[in-house]
Amino acid sequence: MRAGIAPQKCSAREVQSGCGGAARSWGNSLEKMSENGLMSRAKVLTIDTMNPTVKKVEYAVRGPIVQRAVELERELSEGMKKPFVEVIRANIGDAHAMGQQPITFFRQVLALCSYPELLNDSTFPEDAKSRAHRILQSCGGNSMGSYSASQGIDSVRQDVARYIERRDGGVSCDPDDIYLTTGASDGIVTMLKLLMCGEGAARTGVMISIPQYPLYSAALAELGAVQINYYLNEENCWSLDITELQRALDEARLHCNPRALCIINPGNPTGQVQSRECIEDVIRFAAKERLFLMADEVYQDNVYADGCQFHSFKKVLFEMGPEYSNTVELASFHSTSKCYMGECGFRGGYMEIINMDDDVKAQLTKLVSVRLCPPVPGQALMDLVVNPPQPGEPSYDNFIKERTATLSVLAEKAKLTEQVLNTVQGISCNPVQGAMYSFPRITIPKKAIEEALQPDMFYCMKMLEETGICLVPGSGFGQKEGTYHFRMTILPPTDKLQILLNKVKEFHQKFTQQYS
Amino acid sequence: MRAGIAPQKCSAREVQSGCGGAARSWGNSLEKMSENGLMSRAKVLTIDTMNPTVKKVEYAVRGPIVQRAVELERELSEGMKKPFVEVIRANIGDAHAMGQQPITFFRQVLALCSYPELLNDSTFPEDAKSRAHRILQSCGGNSMGSYSASQGIDSVRQDVARYIERRDGGVSCDPDDIYLTTGASDGIVTMLKLLMCGEGAARTGVMISIPQYPLYSAALAELGAVQINYYLNEENCWSLDITELQRALDEARLHCNPRALCIINPGNPTGQVQSRECIEDVIRFAAKERLFLMADEVYQDNVYADGCQFHSFKKVLFEMGPEYSNTVELASFHSTSKCYMGECGFRGGYMEIINMDDDVKAQLTKLVSVRLCPPVPGQALMDLVVNPPQPGEPSYDNFIKERTATLSVLAEKAKLTEQVLNTVQGISCNPVQGAMYSFPRITIPKKAIEEALQPDMFYCMKMLEETGICLVPGSGFGQKEGTYHFRMTILPPTDKLQILLNKVKEFHQKFTQQYS
Repeated sequence: MRAGIAPQKCSAREVQSGCGGAARSWGNSLEKMSENGLMSRAKVLTIDTMNPTVKKVEYAVRGPIVQRAVELERELSEGMKKPFVEVIRANIGDAHAMGQQPITFFRQVLALCSYPELLNDSTFPEDAKSRAHRILQSCGGNSMGSYSASQGIDSVRQDVARYIERRDGGVSCDPDDIYLTTGASDGIVTMLKLLMCGEGAARTGVMISIPQYPLYSAALAELGAVQINYYLNEENCWSLDITELQRALDEARLHCNPRALCIINPGNPTGQVQSRECIEDVIRFAAKERLFLMADEVYQDNVYADGCQFHSFKKVLFEMGPEYSNTVELASFHSTSKCYMGECGFRGGYMEIINMDDDVKAQLTKLVSVRLCPPVPGQALMDLVVNPPQPGEPSYDNFIKERTATLSVLAEKAKLTEQVLNTVQGISCNPVQGAMYSFPRITIPKKAIEEALQPDMFYCMKMLEETGICLVPGSGFGQKEGTYHFRMTILPPTDKLQILLNKVKEFHQKFTQQYS
Repeated sequence: MRAGIAPQKCSAREVQSGCGGAARSWGNSLEKMSENGLMSRAKVLTIDTMNPTVKKVEYAVRGPIVQRAVELERELSEGMKKPFVEVIRANIGDAHAMGQQPITFFRQVLALCSYPELLNDSTFPEDAKSRAHRILQSCGGNSMGSYSASQGIDSVRQDVARYIERRDGGVSCDPDDIYLTTGASDGIVTMLKLLMCGEGAARTGVMISIPQYPLYSAALAELGAVQINYYLNEENCWSLDITELQRALDEARLHCNPRALCIINPGNPTGQVQSRECIEDVIRFAAKERLFLMADEVYQDNVYADGCQFHSFKKVLFEMGPEYSNTVELASFHSTSKCYMGECGFRGGYMEIINMDDDVKAQLTKLVSVRLCPPVPGQALMDLVVNPPQPGEPSYDNFIKERTATLSVLAEKAKLTEQVLNTVQGISCNPVQGAMYSFPRITIPKKAIEEALQPDMFYCMKMLEETGICLVPGSGFGQKEGTYHFRMTILPPTDKLQILLNKVKEFHQKFTQQYS
């Protein structure tokens, strides 16, 4: 084989310095003949020699459907004819991309922090200037270009703590328990990472709801943890039943070490808002079964349905008394990306850690220091979210107006989505009580099920090709065997959403006819 | 034991619902008596049950010395008397925190992107507006608040590719090979993660220079990889010798599977700038030994010494001809945090991937999609770095003036640092050819070595307590057994740096006297 090395693959200098010798060290199995008969060096990093846990990662929200959507957009822009004029991305909770406007005050402060010369500009309101001033004073050299403390800027963490205290009716919050993060995802992955321990039957197991937000399954796959599925009750508006938690836990205990329980409230992709009673039950369950609680509460302002209210796990925990509040370990996550602000691109977020062992907390602080600090503009934005304009300040009225408008439009779209989808035979949609998504159940005809490997992927891909609507198949989030769903955001502007829903309706009817 | 549960630890409701039963499931070994005799629930997550690889992580740049520096700052602010009036943080390459001013044009564009109302403000230069306009047009809904593509904004990646082509004398660059990142650290950790494979003697080994930037050792510890140390030659200005690479590799092959070779050029913490010949040798070595090359080139504009020049690995690789440029796998990293801009807080960066297997690249793209996208303000900033004002544009002259001023002051400080430190008996400092640090060797008297567990940590801690100067001990970066160093940034303003260097000198003399 070695003799087959083509001369043009070996420079004069290499021949002198022993190119053959080098080839010898690759080993024969690593050489391969390319089609034209030349020897080529095998790659160091191939699909067979790369990290096997990374290969197991799946992330449907940006999966094949979205990749195809990007291609279709390119094809449209190149003038290719399609049965639609634009791709509508209803696959991801990306509010601004769907036309939602940023909160003026937030962006004014960010501009002031970015270019402090503007502090002399009389057109900016005084409260925006004073916020910017305070943020810059907390930055090294008064610049957002400095690293912050790894845990986040002190004054921002203080503001987060005060926000949590207000939100939770006075339950105290220590800024030392706040870690600013690069979006909520970063905090969630960091916490899961801390929990990893053991091998084989002692491997860490983490309970996640099904349907789930696929960050969880992706992170668990990458970390090599055992994913323990508990199913939400679709028949009862995606409620969480303790008996189902118990079933899932008991089964998992046979083959792994369940250590944590993840809850998303309000739910993603399922849109339910948990009752206070349910949260109490979950906390009691976590205490009884010794599980670390992870509460993903990034949609805490996104509650639309009458009679529903957001209850933070922290608040409920502390109101349950010291036998719980002194013992149950909880991490709660928030973000700048959702709610009324929808500032995904800034990657701001925080987590609050409750009852964490001091030594573990020191390890957490060390761990986050390796990535130096979360992005400072995102930290600044998080600060504004937890410390928005107050009554009497010049920007207050406009802030309230903008926030209220955004949230009431979202509420309207949540209702509209549920209503229209439920008019379609073969689609059944639970109320979108909160968050930003509907997750309707779809009936897929037998013929389509037989034809497709993944019937809901097939359905969504066909919908994309025929209508330009980009949804995510339910299989990307998990669903009960034999049921099919898709996730659709409620974020497009109302008029566009109406059109989109009608197109979904037409498509579903056509699809059903075609495969019946 | 169970009978010992104190009533105040068990609410009425719990007793009803079987609190004892719950306690039973904790297992006896998990209960413990607190000091006052009450039973308390053992934590789920303790130092003994947390992720063992996280415990192994060390990150000296933000280690105990820095923690003490933070305490000292607090004590000073509370009026406590110290032998100094301020803490000088020379531990980290945080330019703005040390008073370096941001580039005006960059910050103008960021302000415009943050608050697009300013596009109507006539005080902003037209080129800043057109850059902002272009960036916003590439953002969903024309907002930095939208998620970008996971690989980064298309137009930014195009600009990065053109920058690389200009930098590398026309060697072509495909925007598809560019991944925008959350600072360079994010890219480095992602690439290392892909390379992890195998167990025991087949475990992935990664070659890193000693001294190294501790991100590498921290990431390798966390990923459970084998760290393969190759020592830079301090006697020859921290040069990289191929014989030493070979020694390290051959030894490592006995117990792991070496797969990657990491290079930092210009060097951190060592400040050397690699010659073109050396880079060629390294590339030849990587080809011969089948190693994936990782080139950390975040200091590419920070070259100060006469006769030194930055050569990118990419350029050298392609100039070595197709037998290398078609085969050697390379990832190169850059960042907004260093060079003349020093915008650490924005966490901007990119990596370029060369000769990566297509299937692996697809996996990489999938992997980065899980964290959705790098922070958009950091992406915007990266765009400005690779596409700064051009001749003829209104901001060009001022941009060049600011950039030149910053870089020449840095060059001056590099020289000053080397000169002053070399006047001290017992301190010996290689030229700071590039980057932002000096890494002088210090002679620690025998008595101090005998007294201290970590002599250089002891030295630096004592320096901090006596002078307020915060340095990082050489042990945090790795050093040859029996040698001691510290890393000091050259970033403080020249007058302050002069004072700092004199203080270091005095301290070293006093310390030497005290322990001789």
